[in-house]
Amino acid sequence: MKHPASRPLTAAARSGQRLLLLCLLLLGLTARAEEVKSPNGQLTLSFELQAGVPTYRLRYKGREVIKPSKLGLELKGTSSLQSGFTQTAAQQRSFDETWTPVWGESKTIRNHYNELAVTLTQAETQRTMRVRFRVFDDGLGFRYEFPRQPKLDYFTIKEERTQFALAGDHKAFWLPGDYDTQEYSTVTSKLSEVRGRMKAAVTGNASQTTFSPTGLQTPLMLKSQDGLYINIHEAALIDYSCMHLELNDQTMVLESHLTPDAVGDKGLIQTPANSPWRTIIVSDKAGDILLSKLVLNLNEPTKFKDVSWIKPVKYVGVWWEMITGKSTWSYTNMDNIKLDSVDYRKVKPNGTHGANNAHVKEYIDFAAQHGFDAVLVEGWNTGWEDWFGKHKDYVFDFVTPYPDFDVQELNRYAQSKNVRIIMHHETSGSVRNYERHLDTAFQFMNKYGYNAVKTGYVGDIVPLGHKHYDQWMINHYNYVLEKAAAHRIMVNGHEAVRPTGLSRTYPNLIGNEAARGTEYESFGGNNADHTTILPFTRLIGGPMDYTPGIFQTKVSAYNPQNTSFVHSTLARQLALYVTMYSPLQMAADLPETYNKHLDAFQFIKDVAVDWDDTKVLEAEPGDYITYARKAKGRSSWFVGSTCDENGRTSSIDLGFLEPGKKYVATIYADAPDAHYERNPQAYQIRKLNVTRKTKLTQRCAPGGGYAISLVEAGR
Amino acid sequence: MKHPASRPLTAAARSGQRLLLLCLLLLGLTARAEEVKSPNGQLTLSFELQAGVPTYRLRYKGREVIKPSKLGLELKGTSSLQSGFTQTAAQQRSFDETWTPVWGESKTIRNHYNELAVTLTQAETQRTMRVRFRVFDDGLGFRYEFPRQPKLDYFTIKEERTQFALAGDHKAFWLPGDYDTQEYSTVTSKLSEVRGRMKAAVTGNASQTTFSPTGLQTPLMLKSQDGLYINIHEAALIDYSCMHLELNDQTMVLESHLTPDAVGDKGLIQTPANSPWRTIIVSDKAGDILLSKLVLNLNEPTKFKDVSWIKPVKYVGVWWEMITGKSTWSYTNMDNIKLDSVDYRKVKPNGTHGANNAHVKEYIDFAAQHGFDAVLVEGWNTGWEDWFGKHKDYVFDFVTPYPDFDVQELNRYAQSKNVRIIMHHETSGSVRNYERHLDTAFQFMNKYGYNAVKTGYVGDIVPLGHKHYDQWMINHYNYVLEKAAAHRIMVNGHEAVRPTGLSRTYPNLIGNEAARGTEYESFGGNNADHTTILPFTRLIGGPMDYTPGIFQTKVSAYNPQNTSFVHSTLARQLALYVTMYSPLQMAADLPETYNKHLDAFQFIKDVAVDWDDTKVLEAEPGDYITYARKAKGRSSWFVGSTCDENGRTSSIDLGFLEPGKKYVATIYADAPDAHYERNPQAYQIRKLNVTRKTKLTQRCAPGGGYAISLVEAGR
Repeated sequence: MKHPASRPLTAAARSGQRLLLLCLLLLGLTARAEEVKSPNGQLTLSFELQAGVPTYRLRYKGREVIKPSKLGLELKGTSSLQSGFTQTAAQQRSFDETWTPVWGESKTIRNHYNELAVTLTQAETQRTMRVRFRVFDDGLGFRYEFPRQPKLDYFTIKEERTQFALAGDHKAFWLPGDYDTQEYSTVTSKLSEVRGRMKAAVTGNASQTTFSPTGLQTPLMLKSQDGLYINIHEAALIDYSCMHLELNDQTMVLESHLTPDAVGDKGLIQTPANSPWRTIIVSDKAGDILLSKLVLNLNEPTKFKDVSWIKPVKYVGVWWEMITGKSTWSYTNMDNIKLDSVDYRKVKPNGTHGANNAHVKEYIDFAAQHGFDAVLVEGWNTGWEDWFGKHKDYVFDFVTPYPDFDVQELNRYAQSKNVRIIMHHETSGSVRNYERHLDTAFQFMNKYGYNAVKTGYVGDIVPLGHKHYDQWMINHYNYVLEKAAAHRIMVNGHEAVRPTGLSRTYPNLIGNEAARGTEYESFGGNNADHTTILPFTRLIGGPMDYTPGIFQTKVSAYNPQNTSFVHSTLARQLALYVTMYSPLQMAADLPETYNKHLDAFQFIKDVAVDWDDTKVLEAEPGDYITYARKAKGRSSWFVGSTCDENGRTSSIDLGFLEPGKKYVATIYADAPDAHYERNPQAYQIRKLNVTRKTKLTQRCAPGGGYAISLVEAGR
Repeated sequence: MKHPASRPLTAAARSGQRLLLLCLLLLGLTARAEEVKSPNGQLTLSFELQAGVPTYRLRYKGREVIKPSKLGLELKGTSSLQSGFTQTAAQQRSFDETWTPVWGESKTIRNHYNELAVTLTQAETQRTMRVRFRVFDDGLGFRYEFPRQPKLDYFTIKEERTQFALAGDHKAFWLPGDYDTQEYSTVTSKLSEVRGRMKAAVTGNASQTTFSPTGLQTPLMLKSQDGLYINIHEAALIDYSCMHLELNDQTMVLESHLTPDAVGDKGLIQTPANSPWRTIIVSDKAGDILLSKLVLNLNEPTKFKDVSWIKPVKYVGVWWEMITGKSTWSYTNMDNIKLDSVDYRKVKPNGTHGANNAHVKEYIDFAAQHGFDAVLVEGWNTGWEDWFGKHKDYVFDFVTPYPDFDVQELNRYAQSKNVRIIMHHETSGSVRNYERHLDTAFQFMNKYGYNAVKTGYVGDIVPLGHKHYDQWMINHYNYVLEKAAAHRIMVNGHEAVRPTGLSRTYPNLIGNEAARGTEYESFGGNNADHTTILPFTRLIGGPMDYTPGIFQTKVSAYNPQNTSFVHSTLARQLALYVTMYSPLQMAADLPETYNKHLDAFQFIKDVAVDWDDTKVLEAEPGDYITYARKAKGRSSWFVGSTCDENGRTSSIDLGFLEPGKKYVATIYADAPDAHYERNPQAYQIRKLNVTRKTKLTQRCAPGGGYAISLVEAGR
């Protein structure tokens, strides 16, 4: 016999198996709930098998955050991992460490939790999985773990069935669930209103695939009627597809909905493997959500041995002028080009190309004069005449400059002034093409001294069938991060998947877009309350390259055809450098405009991009946020405040300042008649002496805000 | 107004347009047929617009080969390119060149045709396409050309609708149409019998996707009842999906059926672009089909400036022993491995690993002793424990050897004996992974002195949704060829798409599999007539790495568990070196076996792999083929003959030998009692003196054949 292992069982063996099964079933039925509390005792996580189905529950100060909710996964071509389980082990442990991020909102981060790991076995299929819960003072993280085992070596996920049973019809700050984009305006509504407001919420995008009238994205910010703030997201998204949430608007149960690949599968898994962490941050104080480091803590420490090449970056760029339509990425007005068949030296230039030698040098001069680290230059490479919307494969080669962009000379010039040029790799979603050129492109960057790249994935993923957030693409983004690290290159990924705290593991991931950024102020505008929400939603996963600092709020000043305007006062633009945390901050407006407002521009020059400490002074999602942050290695603090379209008066206490020290506060505020629509550029700057005992009252105009620098007196 | 170009037409302009349309329609209706003949006048191609629908027709010596057949393409999301055409130009020209292939069946190749290019315009859509016909003495090639034009810049093919209306219910030598494999046994039947025999024809394969009960592959070999031999295939398959044929078994019309991508599209085209050539080789002599160079001629000349590194290769290899199950590719008996997490030095070896240092040196010694150029070594690299069938992404890295394979020492040893090791890159179909490693893998080859690689694509393409023959994969195979050429590496592609004469353009493509090779003799066997058909079908596109030379026809001699046997006599195995043209020829059996039959082995040592001239002495598809070929740069000739399961007596005329010269013929023939099933190893070798006046009669056993070397006397 060729396969003795597959011989039929004897009757005795069969009855023995049945007995074992029965025992395990009884064990399962009689299993008691497991419970673990947060270090401060305020959160309680319970786990219970209900008739073989794993469930969990989360309470905060005795209040229900997540009602008993099912856990499990549906597999393709085999029975599910949702029921028939017995609990075969449960282990608890406590963990407390303090680690130092390469860059961040505070000098050190405490990672303190109590853990419960429950091992579950399906007697019938002889398969085992583990659910690991970590309960922090600020919330819960849990993941599925699939140990190496004979009966579960490879499997395909049909759907993950993780539930989040909410305790009520909460107020939600939500985006339509989409496999390809997060560039939607946040809708603020009750969960029960999602369905009715979905259609209007789905505005057009270069690539978009919504999946349900009640499908939502993460991070999802919620507020209960009794004042609990709850944020649901994921951490450490690696080799798995991105999770969305499907709302049952009758029961208020959210359920995981993974991004499918080209054939509809939602994940190919080889054991041993872990899912990403599913995260629930909770507090009765809104500011605690903003300060939570739970998502970062659930990521693995970096394996990079040398991180000296990773540095926060403040930059300007040849960018906003193209976004507004004042200049162009392309060098000619040709259409339908094939990359290698055009001799650009023989083609008539369009005269509007932004990334030309003389103009880039102006930016370099401006950056050097004002102490910026870098200049982003988009549209430097050939192919921009015909780059978008055609599902073109060979769209860019990432190494061939237009004839009016002298790579060597411009990098030499920049570096002679202690400035770097930031590389731009727009892929147009043509991912195979990008990977084919990646090594060469990074070698090219090393050769000329580029140390950071902005990547872009505008449009549908090519080859078609893939989605921006499927497992294949998640794998791609991380591949780029690893390749970049091997070349000591920092990455700022646009149109990539929303971050999930991966910058702890890959600290060269210094920025992401993954939401509506400032560019939309030129495409019709963002809501006035946009920046009072993003820190509660998108930024929970990691920093955003929001590109603030637009002083010329009327886009028509640059392009008469463009009637958009920035839905923010000028003063609020300054506040964003503090409220939108990022180690990568752009001064996005044009030098010619900054030169007209050098007094206000001084704040952008002064503000730090890396921090020793962070405080939330005031916060309410959708209404206002006021942060205070202490500059890394310096005694200076910076305060930023943003409010919604109603305006408000902010009262803040400078008690965070160091005892015994005197500071000079420079306050960049909206003028009394400022208004984001009617009078956005009206600002006032005043100085006063303050100490930690000072209390300040500061008005924010509608769609406004303020920024304060606090410099130790005499420094 | 923002878009003046889109202003509504005035009434006058509209009526002008209508008039133009009417004129063009009338022109179309009254257009006369275009006609072009082959240089020798025996073939006549006619083109005619029938009520705006392009059609063509092909006659050979007045007999109908292709009855009036429609041309055109169905597009996605826009109107088709099938009707509404007017003929706006028709150009004829003649062409005659003789070119020298880098390697081949003859020293030079004549490329001689009359051409007709018909320009067709759809008045309504303002789109233009061209159909270019080239009529050779041995057949017809035609393609679609899509010039650069404003109204047709990018388009997606829904289906190509090229018809081949056959004149009768021909005898066909066919394989089931499949998007993923050609590894089927040829069925010989009337076209009307295809449907009934399809189910049995679809045997199992590691990756397969049939699409229709009457879907067929190309090259499709046909024979009409009145004795016309017709072969339908394609040439120059570049940036387009591979064509199959859909048979209408009522009308005997074949229609093109392209391979779809992951979302069902059949080709993304950017103009200017051309389709591959659709080829129809025709003759009333079977041997003319075998001698046709039409497919090669329709490919572009190579752009390689230096081809000195491309050389035909005769090789042995650590291969058949794994195919039979005598040894293993893998070094251990682990399962479910992750490539980077295994320390092979700490794992127990299985003791059956073929590619170990000592054993590879034995092959190198054998190769050196007998004058072979190279040794293929499979299973040299880590990952073979868990490489197949799991749609695994990171399955191989192509640079890490098993601990018992010393890359540096073995290459040094081989090269010291004037032998090269042939690299093996099995991808397991995980194409992104291969492309990610391609540069590094080729650099690794350059470092150690490998100059040829055998690639493999066993199993489903990963990412799932892609097919072995879709446009995305066609692009991949050509990408590998170009990358390899940049590293001066020759490629032998297994499980890749069937060749279409691309070796003219990429002469480093020295081999392909793309059919059932000798390996199937260990997987249950090939039909006894298999090698009397392949030169009429698969080999029309290019050489096949058939890996002949199996002397030990009982596989059980190597592996008692394996009851397969080779469906060929030993003498026929020798004939295959002549009948299965390839610049890459393996002596596939084990040295220990060759050492027992050194007399017969002498033919393999002597036979050339590159030729100055080729004659077909006898041929009938499915029954027998006898070739004579003159060794490149030498006076020696080699004859090979293969026959079907019935056996036969071959009568051949040596009139191809040079006048006035005397030759010693060494005839390797089946013994009188030889039989491919009952007595396959019975052979006889005899020598005789011959001249061009000699006529030989030689019997072939059932499933047998013979091989003759003809060496100038005194040399």
